[in-house]
Amino acid sequence: MTPPLKPWLPIPTDSDFSIYNLPFGIFSTQGDMRRPGMAIGDHIVDLRALPAVSLQDIPGIDPEVFSKPTLNDFISLGKPVWQAVRQQVQQLLTDENSPLRTEYAQALIPMKKATMHLPVRIGDYTDFYSSLEHATNVGTMFRGKDNALMPNWKHLPVAYHGRASSVVVSGTPLHRPRGQMMPPDAAQPIFGQSRALDFELEMAFVVGKDSALGQPVTIQDAEEHIFGFVLFNDWSARDIQKWEYVPLGPFLGKNFGSSMSPWIVTLDALEPFRVASPKQEPEPLPYLQTVGKYNFDIQLEVLIQAEGKESAVVTRSNFKHMYWNVCQQLAHHTVNGCNIKVGDLMASGTISGQDPQSFGSMLELTGNGAQPLHLPGGSTRKFVEDHDTVTMRGFAEKEGMRVGFGEVSTKILPAV
Amino acid sequence: MTPPLKPWLPIPTDSDFSIYNLPFGIFSTQGDMRRPGMAIGDHIVDLRALPAVSLQDIPGIDPEVFSKPTLNDFISLGKPVWQAVRQQVQQLLTDENSPLRTEYAQALIPMKKATMHLPVRIGDYTDFYSSLEHATNVGTMFRGKDNALMPNWKHLPVAYHGRASSVVVSGTPLHRPRGQMMPPDAAQPIFGQSRALDFELEMAFVVGKDSALGQPVTIQDAEEHIFGFVLFNDWSARDIQKWEYVPLGPFLGKNFGSSMSPWIVTLDALEPFRVASPKQEPEPLPYLQTVGKYNFDIQLEVLIQAEGKESAVVTRSNFKHMYWNVCQQLAHHTVNGCNIKVGDLMASGTISGQDPQSFGSMLELTGNGAQPLHLPGGSTRKFVEDHDTVTMRGFAEKEGMRVGFGEVSTKILPAV
Repeated sequence: MTPPLKPWLPIPTDSDFSIYNLPFGIFSTQGDMRRPGMAIGDHIVDLRALPAVSLQDIPGIDPEVFSKPTLNDFISLGKPVWQAVRQQVQQLLTDENSPLRTEYAQALIPMKKATMHLPVRIGDYTDFYSSLEHATNVGTMFRGKDNALMPNWKHLPVAYHGRASSVVVSGTPLHRPRGQMMPPDAAQPIFGQSRALDFELEMAFVVGKDSALGQPVTIQDAEEHIFGFVLFNDWSARDIQKWEYVPLGPFLGKNFGSSMSPWIVTLDALEPFRVASPKQEPEPLPYLQTVGKYNFDIQLEVLIQAEGKESAVVTRSNFKHMYWNVCQQLAHHTVNGCNIKVGDLMASGTISGQDPQSFGSMLELTGNGAQPLHLPGGSTRKFVEDHDTVTMRGFAEKEGMRVGFGEVSTKILPAV
Repeated sequence: MTPPLKPWLPIPTDSDFSIYNLPFGIFSTQGDMRRPGMAIGDHIVDLRALPAVSLQDIPGIDPEVFSKPTLNDFISLGKPVWQAVRQQVQQLLTDENSPLRTEYAQALIPMKKATMHLPVRIGDYTDFYSSLEHATNVGTMFRGKDNALMPNWKHLPVAYHGRASSVVVSGTPLHRPRGQMMPPDAAQPIFGQSRALDFELEMAFVVGKDSALGQPVTIQDAEEHIFGFVLFNDWSARDIQKWEYVPLGPFLGKNFGSSMSPWIVTLDALEPFRVASPKQEPEPLPYLQTVGKYNFDIQLEVLIQAEGKESAVVTRSNFKHMYWNVCQQLAHHTVNGCNIKVGDLMASGTISGQDPQSFGSMLELTGNGAQPLHLPGGSTRKFVEDHDTVTMRGFAEKEGMRVGFGEVSTKILPAV
């Protein structure tokens, strides 16, 4: 993985899918099945075609996994296999005499001919709440400045269980949810369309290794259980959420849909982009202590495109802002013996920076609608409107290496 | 289903698994695979053996589903198939000339030779909070009498997402969880074993039909999406829960394990036991309105057995006490477009009656430990202790028909 690596395949300079990335996903082509692939530039490497080329010799490989409609079985083969497959594909793409240039050229499929699907069968989905700035911003709006941060927040990575069935892949439109709300000053709740539909800019990791019920995953072992990362939009209906969430947390305000990007970027690909985690004060309990670089410098942005209009960046943030890192999240999640499974999804919570232009939700960006955002063409937004398309992008870049996530893009359709 | 039905197989008088019940489960026998069966008295009908006898003619049947390790594929065949299979088996068990008495006698397996397993692969697990008495009791203890019932409680069936991976079948021991807690008057949280491990007496239903993302299930259609019911113990570590649950709800205080009974009792078997639902004041919004008998008269009890001691009933309750019925729960869950899938589990929340001897948790029975329960042999319990076995039982009975759930029984092992 030492740069510079020179692929023989032409790759656009600003591609998220450089030779240093090689993320995994599930794609299909017309008339053919869903199957695993890896992204390179504007192409997909069809892994189903590769055992015959070179993958069949990897210890522990089972070529069957490359004909499955999700990555779960591949991931279950274990980290040495993921790593070997990625290295082999990297070599096939840099070897001037690669069979991918000749008799196996059909294993390189133009992205525009492929449809992307949910990459994993998600067992359980957990959403954390690990950005200090976001928790403070939202807490201030919902409970006032003095109660913004709950007493537990700096002692543990707060989280709740989300709904796995309604996680969809980028490109899947979602309908504006309807539900019960209590308007300000109303005597009775009403039923209707959400008037405060919001995005939440998040990242999520995909679990790569099971743990047994009753057996905590220590913070030292946590990374062994992480397959890779995606962009994640944790859609939220603020008005529904506000009325329902006490005392047991968010439910219908969230579970109408959550959107993820299709390519899972491996932890290996992100290694060069590690940065120091923020100092935690008070010091966490021993089971949550990490020393070193457990955060990742990943630039993030959110764009809104009104129908027929230009898209506009509405916020720029960075994954490095997280107060609680992913190892802390995983160690906390399992410290009581809760088991995790390959394909489980764990989202970060909204990633906000200190700068108001780096806030990760409309709730924060507009002060709960008080200061609407101005979009190109003269329209304004308090929250997300029907026919808007919300797109999140993210990438890491350093010393000529770019490792990006592509995007998670979702169009909001009117309520059913 | 009109009584009296007379099975030729001897069935103990007080059996939960009468000819009127015929619940579905997943069992295995020594050296053989997990597969679907139906309970009758002290026996299991091995459905794998039955297509050859009579099931092969049912429209829509696929005999493959009877060799699967979960019921999901069987359930996905649809309600007409479940109903036909149950009717056929009922006939085979009442027909004096049944082939189950002769050449297919090996399809009747003594329960004591079988091991029961989780009956479904659970996609998502949701826990409601639908007992007025429980919500009032717990709310009073956690937030005082004036804030016991939140303003939303009588307007919607409050719920949260639970953890599907850690739902286990009856007989699976669970370790006492460890975690972070804030002891009263402490300045800093501590890490340790839960000292307030509690059961929650619940029932749960298993979803029998998918719904599409974006498409609500109306309250009129809700029962079409219910396959059947089980007993459910929503284990809770009160001290962990108390510290973590604000503002996003229960997490590690619950997800170390939840226990379910192995036999799924169908909605058809419960039809005779419908009772009127309680009057709801204020009247719910139209999407939540039911008129008629949407509750079920199911007697419930919880027993605690200290190691080497007699077991003792610590509470008796009834499923009919639920303020929010299952159709209201399902209509609410999907009103925002959240999709449900075959095998999803939806638990009721703790089922408490008005009488203090009908409270469904130790938290309520002991007043958060203030009035310990006395067990046979002289010991007392504020909460559940190591090596205790907690067993929940439930049955409906009327006019000579008994339809029971068997039990969900769980031994608590010391912390790891």
